[in-house]
Amino acid sequence: MNAVLEALQLKADMEDVQSCKDDRCLPINHVGIKDLEHPIILHEPGATQTTIATCSFYVALPAQQRGTHMSRFISIMEEHYRNISIHQFQSMPAHVTEVLDAESSRIEMTFKMFRNKTAPISGLQSLMDYQVSLTGEYSGEASETLIKVAVPATSLCPCSKKISDYGAHNQRSLITLTVKPRDFISIVDLIDIAENNASAEVFSLVKRDDEKYLTEHAYNNPKFVEDIVRDLALSLNSDPRISGFRVETENFESIHNHSAYAMIDRLSK
Amino acid sequence: MNAVLEALQLKADMEDVQSCKDDRCLPINHVGIKDLEHPIILHEPGATQTTIATCSFYVALPAQQRGTHMSRFISIMEEHYRNISIHQFQSMPAHVTEVLDAESSRIEMTFKMFRNKTAPISGLQSLMDYQVSLTGEYSGEASETLIKVAVPATSLCPCSKKISDYGAHNQRSLITLTVKPRDFISIVDLIDIAENNASAEVFSLVKRDDEKYLTEHAYNNPKFVEDIVRDLALSLNSDPRISGFRVETENFESIHNHSAYAMIDRLSK
Amino acid sequence: MNAVLEALQLKADMEDVQSCKDDRCLPINHVGIKDLEHPIILHEPGATQTTIATCSFYVALPAQQRGTHMSRFISIMEEHYRNISIHQFQSMPAHVTEVLDAESSRIEMTFKMFRNKTAPISGLQSLMDYQVSLTGEYSGEASETLIKVAVPATSLCPCSKKISDYGAHNQRSLITLTVKPRDFISIVDLIDIAENNASAEVFSLVKRDDEKYLTEHAYNNPKFVEDIVRDLALSLNSDPRISGFRVETENFESIHNHSAYAMIDRLSK
Amino acid sequence: MNAVLEALQLKADMEDVQSCKDDRCLPINHVGIKDLEHPIILHEPGATQTTIATCSFYVALPAQQRGTHMSRFISIMEEHYRNISIHQFQSMPAHVTEVLDAESSRIEMTFKMFRNKTAPISGLQSLMDYQVSLTGEYSGEASETLIKVAVPATSLCPCSKKISDYGAHNQRSLITLTVKPRDFISIVDLIDIAENNASAEVFSLVKRDDEKYLTEHAYNNPKFVEDIVRDLALSLNSDPRISGFRVETENFESIHNHSAYAMIDRLSK
Repeated sequence: MNAVLEALQLKADMEDVQSCKDDRCLPINHVGIKDLEHPIILHEPGATQTTIATCSFYVALPAQQRGTHMSRFISIMEEHYRNISIHQFQSMPAHVTEVLDAESSRIEMTFKMFRNKTAPISGLQSLMDYQVSLTGEYSGEASETLIKVAVPATSLCPCSKKISDYGAHNQRSLITLTVKPRDFISIVDLIDIAENNASAEVFSLVKRDDEKYLTEHAYNNPKFVEDIVRDLALSLNSDPRISGFRVETENFESIHNHSAYAMIDRLSK
Repeated sequence: MNAVLEALQLKADMEDVQSCKDDRCLPINHVGIKDLEHPIILHEPGATQTTIATCSFYVALPAQQRGTHMSRFISIMEEHYRNISIHQFQSMPAHVTEVLDAESSRIEMTFKMFRNKTAPISGLQSLMDYQVSLTGEYSGEASETLIKVAVPATSLCPCSKKISDYGAHNQRSLITLTVKPRDFISIVDLIDIAENNASAEVFSLVKRDDEKYLTEHAYNNPKFVEDIVRDLALSLNSDPRISGFRVETENFESIHNHSAYAMIDRLSK
Repeated sequence: MNAVLEALQLKADMEDVQSCKDDRCLPINHVGIKDLEHPIILHEPGATQTTIATCSFYVALPAQQRGTHMSRFISIMEEHYRNISIHQFQSMPAHVTEVLDAESSRIEMTFKMFRNKTAPISGLQSLMDYQVSLTGEYSGEASETLIKVAVPATSLCPCSKKISDYGAHNQRSLITLTVKPRDFISIVDLIDIAENNASAEVFSLVKRDDEKYLTEHAYNNPKFVEDIVRDLALSLNSDPRISGFRVETENFESIHNHSAYAMIDRLSK
Repeated sequence: MNAVLEALQLKADMEDVQSCKDDRCLPINHVGIKDLEHPIILHEPGATQTTIATCSFYVALPAQQRGTHMSRFISIMEEHYRNISIHQFQSMPAHVTEVLDAESSRIEMTFKMFRNKTAPISGLQSLMDYQVSLTGEYSGEASETLIKVAVPATSLCPCSKKISDYGAHNQRSLITLTVKPRDFISIVDLIDIAENNASAEVFSLVKRDDEKYLTEHAYNNPKFVEDIVRDLALSLNSDPRISGFRVETENFESIHNHSAYAMIDRLSK
């Protein structure tokens, strides 16, 4: 085969397999790429930080189309979304839907976020890490964003305190808030709500006087997982910036090898 | 304090903190224990095996009750559910709801299951492991069970095959079926459906002639993630034992460091 | 090509690629299969349980041999090692070395093990899970086995107790013992040593009077990670069944989002 | 108690529990903090990037000292090590040893690192992520640093290619290099060595002509795990910048649900 023929043959071979007609007549809800690691610059009010997001991008595929164009998701991410704010994230699903020529899309981004915390007595500063997930869906008619933060904290058991002559079992607890914002709410504000409703906050760096304070503060604020999710729900119910929420608390029990867990769901309302 | 007074005092101290009235007036959707590890004996038609389940048990808590009784979940598991079949699992949520004196409950069990597979040419036998999850909810009016199996398989890229002069990239793929049964369907039947719709099955033990067969079989059955979920949906749509399903395929792409993913959801219909 | 020629050609094609001479002159320390999931029946003195092991099998490969025979590892496992005791495990590396026609081998098996525990006051029984790893190496001259158990426990901070007017932070802690046995020692005996040296043991099922006991017991036994590894080392140093050990403690600190960790290594002596 | 007495009492209570004499006469090899998440700015020759490190810091504790001062590790990290180059990391263990007033220390930092890659035919650019670990030990006499990089790649099975009439099974493979540097070697140079010795490299973004190239390139470069570690060892043996190494390859086999693995260890020489 001569060179010209070879080139033509190659072009034919290269035909777009993904665009072939599909005769199974089945639309697909989500198709795309999962768990792409990508650096992002996160913009919160008054603060900017570089972090690494695990990203998934999906679109719906109509019944007659055989495949989507996976590489476009990467191009969009590389070109447009190195900088992420909640505001910017909210416009992403509609943009992806358009570029992929689809009817709907779903985007997920999970990343660690840090903030500076000040120890309660010594005033020492240190960084704490929080796991954050943003999820966005667009379907032509409606667009929806969820913000989820997982906040480590201390919980101290009211029952153990009450029945024991001294001491009370306590443990690291993970508080998770998932909110549907009505107006803008920052991730840091959500972390504050979570930390304020635990038995005590956790810090990376404490001195002895902080440790004394935190120990006694937790002892003075015993809470079951049930108490924590109810107190969180009270806070979020009265927050005009939020139109729906799910609150969860998981205690990595110090007296068991399993967790205690509670959840209040006000997302569907 | 004398011994009698001490005993009375102890009894008073031991009062049931969890049963206290709660004045926040907030019902809790799920409260319970999460990620308890427990051995179970799994009963499938014609086969029994011992495995280890990661179990979570939740009940709803009415607004006026402060806490649930976490230890009862463990007692129920220890006393009644060492032996698990799908049939038995289906009655568990109602039972837990009753024992915990609740209005609704949710139970999750995830475990590895093994089955003997026969290599396609050599006929050699070996065990393959599959991840299985059972989820059950009971709310007084209705009870619902979901069976989920994750099945490793081979997928081979149709585009790569078509455009390349030789070879085609392929990879391990994870096919996940989540079904709402109408009539009884065994876990093994679901695994069969998944394996039949991949480019090729995977085995723990193959000889050279099996490897030749599997390599050529995959090359003759190229499938995108989109193709796999559509073929799975066709199989499940026509299965009278199933009233709803979600099918997912995740390719751990051999040419990328991220996954390709597709999902068809027919659970809500 | 006629059928006979085709068969001959196939046989030639099927020639043993792994046995080809290799001219890079580089021996390989470990080659084999990693993370095979396989059910085993674990035999401890007076008790037998079925569990699931994650198994890895490696042999050394001499410089002139191109590849090993991966499928033989699976065959050995399927045929000979469904039943595992520590005694049986100790003979496995020599057996694998022989069957693979190698000079040395290394085998790793990690599995969950359960044992029945009795709550300290109520006497209620429940199962606790422990992660166990067996590692065996054989090199012709010498054979070596290591037994590793990871035991969840409670630790309570002596500093927090001392400086606070009431309460003390405590948390779930993971104690890990890795021992080189001289004479037989059961896995359960190792778990006992770990549990006896924590601030308190953990249980799956406790009633209120157990919770009171455990809370007060931990408060009466405050220990840093440093204390726990030293107390463990004292116990193991004086145990004639053990010729070497490494002890580790990791506290999932209730006042931090990181762990405190200590380790004493007496394996190299 | 009046205020002055209370203050004195507090001061006494606050006495440094960690500095108490310990009479168990057991030195501790490693004590410190594990899995602290901290942002770092990574400096490689000609490139700087912000990433998130999981950090562990340990010192040795002499027999007569009861505890170490955990909070100092955090202070050192916050004050001195936001900027990390390999050079800077190499001086860290001696610094930590001095600040903690110890005899030896061990530091571990694990982080994701990105680099821009150019697709082989289209020339499109995209980011790839790699897992990197730095480990440093200082013991007064000697200091040692290890650099470890885990590089995803494609491997294609020589046996499958040889025995099959068409196609060959291939899969994502993880190549891990752990090197003891003699002179400076950049992390990117190590990644290059790993990628050059696989059947093919992986990319985040490829177009059809890249996919054709990579498919055929892998088919033309079939390699067992044994071949990959030997080819890596040949490359590293002849590199004057490296005084010792361990090379590992793990294939996430597309025809099995377990991995094939090989390792050559030249760290101890």
